[in-house]
Amino acid sequence: MKSDLDALMQTRNLDALIVFGNAEHNPPMYYLTGGGHVSHATIIKKRGEEPIYFHADMERDEAAKSGLKRIPYTTYDYEELYKKAKQDSLLAGAMRCELMFKDAGVTSGRVGVYGMYDLSSIFGMLTQLGKLAPALEFVGEPQQDSIFMRAMETKDEAEVNRIRKMGKVTTTVVDKVRQYLISCDVRDDEVLLDEDGAPLTVGDVHSKIRLWVSEQGAELPSGFIFAIGRDAGVPHSAGNPSDLMRLGQTIVFDIYPAEAGGGYYYDFTRTWSLGYATPEAQALYDQVKEIFDQLMDNFDLNAPFKDYHRMTCEFFESKGHLSPMNTKSPVEGYVHSLGHGVGLNIHERPFSNLTASDDQRLAPGVIITSEPGLYYPEKGMGVRIEDTLYVRPDGAMEKLAEYPYDFVLPMKKWKQK
Amino acid sequence: MKSDLDALMQTRNLDALIVFGNAEHNPPMYYLTGGGHVSHATIIKKRGEEPIYFHADMERDEAAKSGLKRIPYTTYDYEELYKKAKQDSLLAGAMRCELMFKDAGVTSGRVGVYGMYDLSSIFGMLTQLGKLAPALEFVGEPQQDSIFMRAMETKDEAEVNRIRKMGKVTTTVVDKVRQYLISCDVRDDEVLLDEDGAPLTVGDVHSKIRLWVSEQGAELPSGFIFAIGRDAGVPHSAGNPSDLMRLGQTIVFDIYPAEAGGGYYYDFTRTWSLGYATPEAQALYDQVKEIFDQLMDNFDLNAPFKDYHRMTCEFFESKGHLSPMNTKSPVEGYVHSLGHGVGLNIHERPFSNLTASDDQRLAPGVIITSEPGLYYPEKGMGVRIEDTLYVRPDGAMEKLAEYPYDFVLPMKKWKQK
Repeated sequence: MKSDLDALMQTRNLDALIVFGNAEHNPPMYYLTGGGHVSHATIIKKRGEEPIYFHADMERDEAAKSGLKRIPYTTYDYEELYKKAKQDSLLAGAMRCELMFKDAGVTSGRVGVYGMYDLSSIFGMLTQLGKLAPALEFVGEPQQDSIFMRAMETKDEAEVNRIRKMGKVTTTVVDKVRQYLISCDVRDDEVLLDEDGAPLTVGDVHSKIRLWVSEQGAELPSGFIFAIGRDAGVPHSAGNPSDLMRLGQTIVFDIYPAEAGGGYYYDFTRTWSLGYATPEAQALYDQVKEIFDQLMDNFDLNAPFKDYHRMTCEFFESKGHLSPMNTKSPVEGYVHSLGHGVGLNIHERPFSNLTASDDQRLAPGVIITSEPGLYYPEKGMGVRIEDTLYVRPDGAMEKLAEYPYDFVLPMKKWKQK
Repeated sequence: MKSDLDALMQTRNLDALIVFGNAEHNPPMYYLTGGGHVSHATIIKKRGEEPIYFHADMERDEAAKSGLKRIPYTTYDYEELYKKAKQDSLLAGAMRCELMFKDAGVTSGRVGVYGMYDLSSIFGMLTQLGKLAPALEFVGEPQQDSIFMRAMETKDEAEVNRIRKMGKVTTTVVDKVRQYLISCDVRDDEVLLDEDGAPLTVGDVHSKIRLWVSEQGAELPSGFIFAIGRDAGVPHSAGNPSDLMRLGQTIVFDIYPAEAGGGYYYDFTRTWSLGYATPEAQALYDQVKEIFDQLMDNFDLNAPFKDYHRMTCEFFESKGHLSPMNTKSPVEGYVHSLGHGVGLNIHERPFSNLTASDDQRLAPGVIITSEPGLYYPEKGMGVRIEDTLYVRPDGAMEKLAEYPYDFVLPMKKWKQK
């Protein structure tokens, strides 16, 4: 939680931190400021003290909503610095940044660098600042294990409520897609038809999904997956827009909307087969559903997350599939890890891959996905089932949004002969 | 243009470049790959050679759409490197990156660093790589003046067509908003009412704008501005969602949608006053429109862009307003610069501020905004007019989307007493 940041800074021996970039779509900045229409901002936080929010004067109203102590950039005479730096804007930026550090009471020590922002200019500016202020040592951290990722790993009640709300948004959209698909007319060759009688494409469905997410006031900052057939068998294929929507093919619908402005995500997947399922796809589905349910019954408070990934590997291997346990980067069978944390990042701690550290556990306050899947691109099929789960402080595992698990969706206007 | 990259690398004495991050919402990566659902990718390009696209194996299909030479990360045994690096993931990443440079034929020289990505991990990884491979010198460039910003400054025909198409999307949405607003019922106290007879808020209009942009298959990756009254007088205020929509107040509607997935932007502003305008607001509007038209008549091929900003400052000062020409960061009057380039970045070269370099010119192939404005937050009003303009190779200045400039929008169901 956010209140852990100072302790985490201490553990990592960081005397201060600096965050660059916009308040939106920038998890560390959003985490500290609460988001808003603020661009090119900077936060400096000395360990044990409140963060200071540096921002453009034009964005003062938006920045004020953060409730943080603020300093507008105009406090520093950039034009003067730019002259002094002989028109070297990276050097002028470094000179200004040095003054900002002084105003934040930071004149020496190790400084963690964060933010989702333009690498080139920050790298260039910090290179200059390192020469100007050699008493400041700038430090980068692994993306998956920074102090922010550590703090964000456990959620407070307000965060859980926001993610739960996004769960409702997500299942509302998923249900609209389902209702739309099952009400389509079907041509003799088992291709779905749209309202105008034209063949329905994956691209058409993509458009509807975008529209319905927007209607809910949410965003798709990391895209989404709605893929059929072979593409459903490639876990990260977004779906080929020109593919036709057909009966009897696996459809992987993996959707991860976020609050508008780059807020909290939800993550959710269902696999459908319209009208009927081939016996082979049905068998895959049944296996994925079987381990999905077993996992739900077995999640234990404080257990390492990767133990459940291993359990999933073992289950799938016992059914004759490849898995990462005994095959390096398989492209068939169970090809990814079981899940990941969800919050301001679509993928965050805890992670579940076999090399994940033991401290990535189902600790109270953690929110994870459970998403076993099986993929056979060459056979034109893939199956994944995913829910987002909250580890309640009382140890119960709460599914943050309920939605049915039926695989075959009967078509309203079509009957199998 | 993209074909200028090698020459630009030569000018900046760069032997290679490396770009980090996702293919979407990451201008340098999008520029080289054409976007798509590819995350955590890397591009290395040796000067004079084709870029090499490193990507996760799961995303091979999406990455293949780029047409670039590809190498999946699985080519490198990360687990082995991770062991060798004693579980230091930044060091393991640096070891892998060194191998990637070797495979791209880069073993020494100056390497430009680019991309919109997690600063912490890249800064940490490059710090390690600098020690592992001291023959590689990593270099950052100013965001506004990197080789990518230089290359992107002039557009080819395909890019212009995409931006023109976004202009059509933009004005379609703007017109929907206009038609919606003027058809609203109006309460006795001049507050607009929604379909259910409830007071219409700025937040309600924001929701509709998001929906209608989405309906057009576009995105709002940098947000948008729809603000009324005092907020219209603060150029970067997005608008306060709880403000009521009222007659006779200035509404600044600044909208900059992009193609889905972080593609090309359009940038557009109109200012409206519903039902009637106060004489003071009308006077502001007339002045802004006057200089807007003068500018359109005066733009000359190859002239420095900032000359037109200076012309705007002079015009507004002659009318008694403050401007950046004689006042440092004014908060009233004309408070920003005239415009900026538009492309994969909402703000890119050429820039028009008074300290912009002379080489930021209206060169053939450049796409800019012209957006004079006047702001009086304490008087509760602001005015801005903006179009996006293309400097055609024949020297003509083409407005990329036409839309009327009327300030007062008569309400269909209300008449001034």
